[in-house]
Amino acid sequence: MFENNRICKLFGIQYPIVQAGMVWCSGWRLAAAVSNAGGLGLIGAGSMTPELLLTHIQKARENTDKPFGVNLPLLGPDVGQKIDIILKENVKIVFTSAGNPKTWTTVLKENRCIVTHVIAGSKYAIKAVEAGTDALVAEGFEAGGHNGREESTTFVLIPAVRKITDLPLIAAGGMYGGGSLLAAIALGADGIQAGSRFAVTEESSAHLEFKKKVIEINEGDTRLSLKKLIPVRMIRNNFYQHITKAEEQGSSRIELLKILGEGRSKLGIFEGDLEEGELEIGQVSALLDKIQPAGEIVKEIIKEYLERKKALSDD
Amino acid sequence: MFENNRICKLFGIQYPIVQAGMVWCSGWRLAAAVSNAGGLGLIGAGSMTPELLLTHIQKARENTDKPFGVNLPLLGPDVGQKIDIILKENVKIVFTSAGNPKTWTTVLKENRCIVTHVIAGSKYAIKAVEAGTDALVAEGFEAGGHNGREESTTFVLIPAVRKITDLPLIAAGGMYGGGSLLAAIALGADGIQAGSRFAVTEESSAHLEFKKKVIEINEGDTRLSLKKLIPVRMIRNNFYQHITKAEEQGSSRIELLKILGEGRSKLGIFEGDLEEGELEIGQVSALLDKIQPAGEIVKEIIKEYLERKKALSDD
Repeated sequence: MFENNRICKLFGIQYPIVQAGMVWCSGWRLAAAVSNAGGLGLIGAGSMTPELLLTHIQKARENTDKPFGVNLPLLGPDVGQKIDIILKENVKIVFTSAGNPKTWTTVLKENRCIVTHVIAGSKYAIKAVEAGTDALVAEGFEAGGHNGREESTTFVLIPAVRKITDLPLIAAGGMYGGGSLLAAIALGADGIQAGSRFAVTEESSAHLEFKKKVIEINEGDTRLSLKKLIPVRMIRNNFYQHITKAEEQGSSRIELLKILGEGRSKLGIFEGDLEEGELEIGQVSALLDKIQPAGEIVKEIIKEYLERKKALSDD
Repeated sequence: MFENNRICKLFGIQYPIVQAGMVWCSGWRLAAAVSNAGGLGLIGAGSMTPELLLTHIQKARENTDKPFGVNLPLLGPDVGQKIDIILKENVKIVFTSAGNPKTWTTVLKENRCIVTHVIAGSKYAIKAVEAGTDALVAEGFEAGGHNGREESTTFVLIPAVRKITDLPLIAAGGMYGGGSLLAAIALGADGIQAGSRFAVTEESSAHLEFKKKVIEINEGDTRLSLKKLIPVRMIRNNFYQHITKAEEQGSSRIELLKILGEGRSKLGIFEGDLEEGELEIGQVSALLDKIQPAGEIVKEIIKEYLERKKALSDD
């Protein structure tokens, strides 16, 4: 099983399932749990100071002897410091996002890192290929958190990226179970990255109230928002209503940034303020109904994948 | 192949590929071509007068001895007349959309029609099941034309609907090739309905300029619009900019209806006014690059489906 899978070979993992490096959710506990279960766990550096990232890398290493990685958004003043830590700690798997892949890919590759870049539109695939990345995550409109302006869904984005490049490709956005993995591969991907489903695991650092909210909501309860700033998919709570109304009434970028303020996603996801926080989560939240251990999810996905694959072959 | 497929059995067709009954595209030529190729062709009654629908049904029958159907939006003053024609002409396959399935399903079923209802959110699946429909089309956010307010993408919508009902299920939105068919089945559907791809066939009634525009555009060039009226996915042309600006500036429903006016989709799709018409098309337009005969598309989808299915089994 998955002997010839390019994602498994590239990262040295058992199953082509990547756990997204989400802000305020993806610490060492979650990453280690997913890696121990045979997937690829990622530490989400986006919400960490360089010091905290160092601690999480060290803790992850203490808690798994399997490969794990770091997701690093390429914006922000401390990217250089975080890269230094990643290299010093000998982390060999880096997922880069939210920025130009050309800036850091060469440095990372010179230090023998495997570099995967996250894109939300096929035109960015060209840039990532030119930058020399080893693999891509293509993330559809349905994904939680930061997203692209093209609004391309997973169903369209995966074949579109596959037309452009033969690089190992990880599909993200809307990933739920084994059916998602099989569908992603059918569309031309080699594996999946799941975010929301791992956000509501026991090992996720998110606040319990946030996890409860995510498993409670239904279709239509998240929305791609903040389109005048950077598009983000979030739950439609008070904060959403407030900033969306301001956007609709023609508020300027500066006014919107003032409403957004600092630390909105921390307030919501980590501190559990369900009304005033920015509750980043994907559309797949509509399918979620329980908080589980992360390893159990990896097992469930693989079990269902094999069942559905067999049903297809028998048909 | 497809011996046990429930969509094929239900409609008596060879392949589980339905051609969407699109306004200004889906006349008898297109429907007959798709049915002759082993799929299910649908006449789009939405843009036809009752008299024209009668002509198209009769012409379709003259041009194929295979099953074909009619797509009937349930809004509009002449629905009753169109149902009379469908029953009198002994059309046995009816796809209903844009309205309450309870209103007409019983009448159609009493006349031994197979009734399939189109939904864009899983909560509408419950209503359709209660109304006694035989099958469902679940249409994701990426689809062209009229769409739902939940913005659920195909990747999320199909598993969500499958959780609710075991009815034969046709996935729509983002359908391109054999990978799409395989992915749709992996997610829990039994077949697919493709719109955009058949809109740019030789047999489509759309204006040549519209077809050329569709194969030229890229990712991000369509947008779900008119959210204050009824959401419609269309190309971002002058008309789109005009009405979107009005929406953003807080125009009332009445003002928006005035800008929309009458016959916008006819102007764009049928008459080829690429700037002032309403150019309804799906995100999958980004993947389209040629005008083909419809039957060739059916063949291509099945060929690629078999190749990808084999590649999966061998893996």
